[in-house]
Amino acid sequence: MHRSRLQTIVIDCNDLEASSEFWAAALRTEVASEVEPPYRALKAMPGGLRILLQEVPEPKTAKSRIHLDIETDDVEAEVRRLEGLGASRQQQVEHWWVMVDPSGNEFCVVPTTPESLGSDGVTWEDSASS
Amino acid sequence: MHRSRLQTIVIDCNDLEASSEFWAAALRTEVASEVEPPYRALKAMPGGLRILLQEVPEPKTAKSRIHLDIETDDVEAEVRRLEGLGASRQQQVEHWWVMVDPSGNEFCVVPTTPESLGSDGVTWEDSASS
Repeated sequence: MHRSRLQTIVIDCNDLEASSEFWAAALRTEVASEVEPPYRALKAMPGGLRILLQEVPEPKTAKSRIHLDIETDDVEAEVRRLEGLGASRQQQVEHWWVMVDPSGNEFCVVPTTPESLGSDGVTWEDSASS
Repeated sequence: MHRSRLQTIVIDCNDLEASSEFWAAALRTEVASEVEPPYRALKAMPGGLRILLQEVPEPKTAKSRIHLDIETDDVEAEVRRLEGLGASRQQQVEHWWVMVDPSGNEFCVVPTTPESLGSDGVTWEDSASS
């Protein structure tokens, strides 16, 4: 007998500092200190899942084959928040946005309802609209 | 104010049936029925994280920029189990294996201790060695 579990999402990046700070802020967690370059870990997420950033020499050249979705009860506010952290809008598709992180990796911001989020979501104070 | 959370890992594939069955079996979960092609969802994982398979026309042509790690207390047994489900060994690196899923997406099988797994891992009955 043996045991296993899905434990980590590893995200390649070209600037370990910038990308780990982006994802820590995007998900309201912190950079953990126990791993060595070229890796940097974020503190554990709900369910024990770990996110690890890995610095690689190759720039992104092709479409992602795995991407992350962030769900939110206010897509426009969440997209603006993530732009403020260094992400960019790439394409609006139906009711969601495809964005890219500081290393060019795609992720999506998708709508959900407050009811669906339950008590799991992080609450963000939105800056006043200009 | 608005809320958000990391909710989904989306894995591109070229055969929705084969890839969703592979990942459901790999993680001991089930294919959920509430989504339409080109998507197929697996039942929720610990922490509420969802895994979604998306069928895409493009074959994999470049190195993954995001990959998943499965951790296990017996790397060789876990690699053999996943080979039996349709994955292939790609490269051994230090104490872990880089494998590819049925659509060519890389993932890793990494060692951990039974203590670190605690009660979270899935227990697999290994087939008798030949």
